[in-house]
Amino acid sequence: PVFCSLSLRCLCDYNMLSRSTATLSPVDFHSPFLTCSSEQVLASTRKLHAGADGSKVSPSAAPERLPFCRVTEEDLAFFRKILAGRTIVDPDLVEPSNVDWLKSVRGSSEVLLRPQTTEEVSQILSYCNSRNLAVNPQGGNTGLVGGSVPVYDEIILSTSLMNKILNFDSISGVLTCQAGCVLENLSFYLEERDYIMPLDLGAKGSCQIGGNVATNAGGLRLLRYGSLHGTVLGLELVLADGQVLDCLSTLRKDNTGYDLKQLFIGSEGTLGVITAVSILCPRKPKSVNVVFLGCETFEQLLKTFQLCKSMLGEILSAFEFLDSECMRLLNTHLKLPNPISDCPFYIVIETSGSDPTHDAQKLHNFLEEAMTSSLVSDGTVATEEAKIKALWSLRERVTEALTHDGFTYKYDISLPVERIYQLVTDMRKHLGNRAKSVVGYGHVGDGNLHLNVTSPSKDPALLAAIEPFVYEWTASCRGSISAEHGLGLKKRNYIYYSKQSQAVALMGNIKAMLDPKGILNPYKTLPDNLKQ
Amino acid sequence: PVFCSLSLRCLCDYNMLSRSTATLSPVDFHSPFLTCSSEQVLASTRKLHAGADGSKVSPSAAPERLPFCRVTEEDLAFFRKILAGRTIVDPDLVEPSNVDWLKSVRGSSEVLLRPQTTEEVSQILSYCNSRNLAVNPQGGNTGLVGGSVPVYDEIILSTSLMNKILNFDSISGVLTCQAGCVLENLSFYLEERDYIMPLDLGAKGSCQIGGNVATNAGGLRLLRYGSLHGTVLGLELVLADGQVLDCLSTLRKDNTGYDLKQLFIGSEGTLGVITAVSILCPRKPKSVNVVFLGCETFEQLLKTFQLCKSMLGEILSAFEFLDSECMRLLNTHLKLPNPISDCPFYIVIETSGSDPTHDAQKLHNFLEEAMTSSLVSDGTVATEEAKIKALWSLRERVTEALTHDGFTYKYDISLPVERIYQLVTDMRKHLGNRAKSVVGYGHVGDGNLHLNVTSPSKDPALLAAIEPFVYEWTASCRGSISAEHGLGLKKRNYIYYSKQSQAVALMGNIKAMLDPKGILNPYKTLPDNLKQ
Repeated sequence: PVFCSLSLRCLCDYNMLSRSTATLSPVDFHSPFLTCSSEQVLASTRKLHAGADGSKVSPSAAPERLPFCRVTEEDLAFFRKILAGRTIVDPDLVEPSNVDWLKSVRGSSEVLLRPQTTEEVSQILSYCNSRNLAVNPQGGNTGLVGGSVPVYDEIILSTSLMNKILNFDSISGVLTCQAGCVLENLSFYLEERDYIMPLDLGAKGSCQIGGNVATNAGGLRLLRYGSLHGTVLGLELVLADGQVLDCLSTLRKDNTGYDLKQLFIGSEGTLGVITAVSILCPRKPKSVNVVFLGCETFEQLLKTFQLCKSMLGEILSAFEFLDSECMRLLNTHLKLPNPISDCPFYIVIETSGSDPTHDAQKLHNFLEEAMTSSLVSDGTVATEEAKIKALWSLRERVTEALTHDGFTYKYDISLPVERIYQLVTDMRKHLGNRAKSVVGYGHVGDGNLHLNVTSPSKDPALLAAIEPFVYEWTASCRGSISAEHGLGLKKRNYIYYSKQSQAVALMGNIKAMLDPKGILNPYKTLPDNLKQ
Repeated sequence: PVFCSLSLRCLCDYNMLSRSTATLSPVDFHSPFLTCSSEQVLASTRKLHAGADGSKVSPSAAPERLPFCRVTEEDLAFFRKILAGRTIVDPDLVEPSNVDWLKSVRGSSEVLLRPQTTEEVSQILSYCNSRNLAVNPQGGNTGLVGGSVPVYDEIILSTSLMNKILNFDSISGVLTCQAGCVLENLSFYLEERDYIMPLDLGAKGSCQIGGNVATNAGGLRLLRYGSLHGTVLGLELVLADGQVLDCLSTLRKDNTGYDLKQLFIGSEGTLGVITAVSILCPRKPKSVNVVFLGCETFEQLLKTFQLCKSMLGEILSAFEFLDSECMRLLNTHLKLPNPISDCPFYIVIETSGSDPTHDAQKLHNFLEEAMTSSLVSDGTVATEEAKIKALWSLRERVTEALTHDGFTYKYDISLPVERIYQLVTDMRKHLGNRAKSVVGYGHVGDGNLHLNVTSPSKDPALLAAIEPFVYEWTASCRGSISAEHGLGLKKRNYIYYSKQSQAVALMGNIKAMLDPKGILNPYKTLPDNLKQ
């Protein structure tokens, strides 16, 4: 099957459980319709993974279609009236919006709407709500958890044509734009004006700012500039019933009532459709340096992180790591040579500052101290763009190297920073020789681990050994089972590993309050047991 | 009357409208019970201020007491059982908690509860909710809008004894503590460990971190470290019905479901009682410098701000201003000499960095450029602590100087940074010689203006000329009528100047969802027309 080449856990379940090979639509799958307590959910999660006998459905599979209405010719006539030429029903043109970019999940929507204005979005939602038609808001469709595509026949509401920059205030650095602006386009726009976006992602060429905000995207600059909860100053939203909620403030300070926009940051399109964003942008740094270092132990790596925070201080902009297993895969599969001597752990440090001489000197002092105190055993520095890119690629191409190593089980985990690598070590012990490779890399600075396990081919027994072990381990440290990717369709039922049941129940109440008919991005973010 | 010496607008209304001189309790006041649209509210606001004939009640006055139950002996017996020795009913001991620190508003509570644990708070709220007893959560009681004291006989729930530091992670810089920890104590604790709190306030000696979070306190470090929406990583809360909501994450990244804690940041104790906080703390800077500069025009001041952001970059930690009228008051009333030559505008710039030599050099380069390009006409630099304090006092003691100038009408406004001073200029023109002084100062870096108008004595006609002019002017620029102080009791009915009516209605729905009986901090934050 065309969607089988990818190594995602969800896909694995998907194929394993497929009863029809004629279609890959989730219509074929049925959830166990969990209507139980969080403890029961955890228990059933464990059971589902332990058995893997094909008769049970994974918690990440789609639940049954909810009783929304189906799109009629009359509905299409209405949409065509307000979106002439932008109501897409040609299956070939709708297809790319039905499939996520990992090609791991696929919906069967027959209608793609491409509004250009907030008013159009409002009209669409008002109509859909009154007609009980489900809607899948879609930005750049670069999400990793199946949150950005329809599950069944939800109408796809794309923000791609809402791509106007509305204002940029060069004194305050506040950018205001429509939700469909592509992140990289905003970056280009700002860099010409000596500013940068406060976030940067691998998917920047296609992801949209509205989707970034809806998923609370993290990315490479979080360590320095913080999360979108701090940098987003305002949002314009359309609620499920078509009401326009104007919270599009451009102020840094505004304590008049509850900060409603916060609720929508990271809600994955389930509470409202973001139509415009205002965001605080930092000045473009005048100097960027990258260092690649080797450490003998993870403890030394953590000590290096502390030293780094102290000595590089305000110019530190990234602190990333990979282990020797990652380096082996980079060497083996991508022929990328190790620029320094072999070590158990490697660090990528980036500095961004306003004075090249000062930054170089700070870096020099830090490196001297790190070497003298034997925290790091080897290292190399890059100041020219080509070498900076080469060093960064060692960190950035680990994912690619992994795809060449076999079938990969991927996890995006937040942990207290001092526990990050213990999970990798424990997983190795736990799996023994059942796994081909167990590798760890990620954003040390943010406490965000990417844990990956490979095997020669898809291996349900291996999966059953990994899960729920990885989730239980994470939960035991009060970690997050989704650091930055969100829950979407795939991880919605795992929420209880990271959130208390009362908190999840409250989320359900908020959803019911803002979207009583549940038309906005159904089957996503919240667990099935809250949705019935 | 003992509470009349202060120069607040609210106090002015208060005395003006008092029908009984025997008591200052808000029991004597009645709101117009607005049950109209936002437009009507605005219209009625205008009318109320235009008349000032004594027969109308100011929107900042307390509404009628809501039909909560009154505390009985049985209730007290229950409280004494769970809080032995910490259930205070002696009027002399309750008194300080009935009055805000400006002595501008006063409640008539007869019970002060001092829990030490989350479980105790939970038991209290569970009981009060079932008994329909109103509760006023109270931290350090340093708020400026009457949000921190009871309005009538609400039970005061003080967090003062919840002052334990629960954990500090010296690798990640994440501090976890109970809500009643005094901000300054946390600062001392952290400074010993080479960290600082991400916020700093004038009230730090008595304000509590729980109250800071509940009011989304801004303060002096916001420009550098951002708002609490970004730095607070987790909260533990007790909801109105006594349910404990555990969102006390210490992770920088966690995208599992809606970020519920955000809703409580800045909700002024109306949605839940914060019992514990985890917060991300920055490293202590190794070098601090302060510069005091003079500018000929506000345009030059804004250009200096831009230059400053560009050349000081990552070490800029404050950019504050005062106008020549402020300087005149400092000279006249406090005998503080102007350290530079006379100018229409003065700037205080602070840098914080990790390398004293680098910081000094960046500052030198910036000053040279600012002088060469004639953006600033004079200036002085401080690197030693005594001179730093002396320069800061010119900015910090403006408030004190104002109190010596006469009766002061105070406004805390957020505006797009380029409009900040226009409001002062327009107000001067608008008031002509009706005002004694019209002064502007504040946090340019945050777009936060403190506008103050003085007169020889309380002057209802002057007030009627200032309001609603100041609010309408602010609303016309999409500014905020409360940048950092919140709405509390005093400003609740002005919310529509800064928030769309749909947004306010949604706030009302959230309040109703989380606190259906409305027992938590009643009469605060939300306008009266939503509360009936």
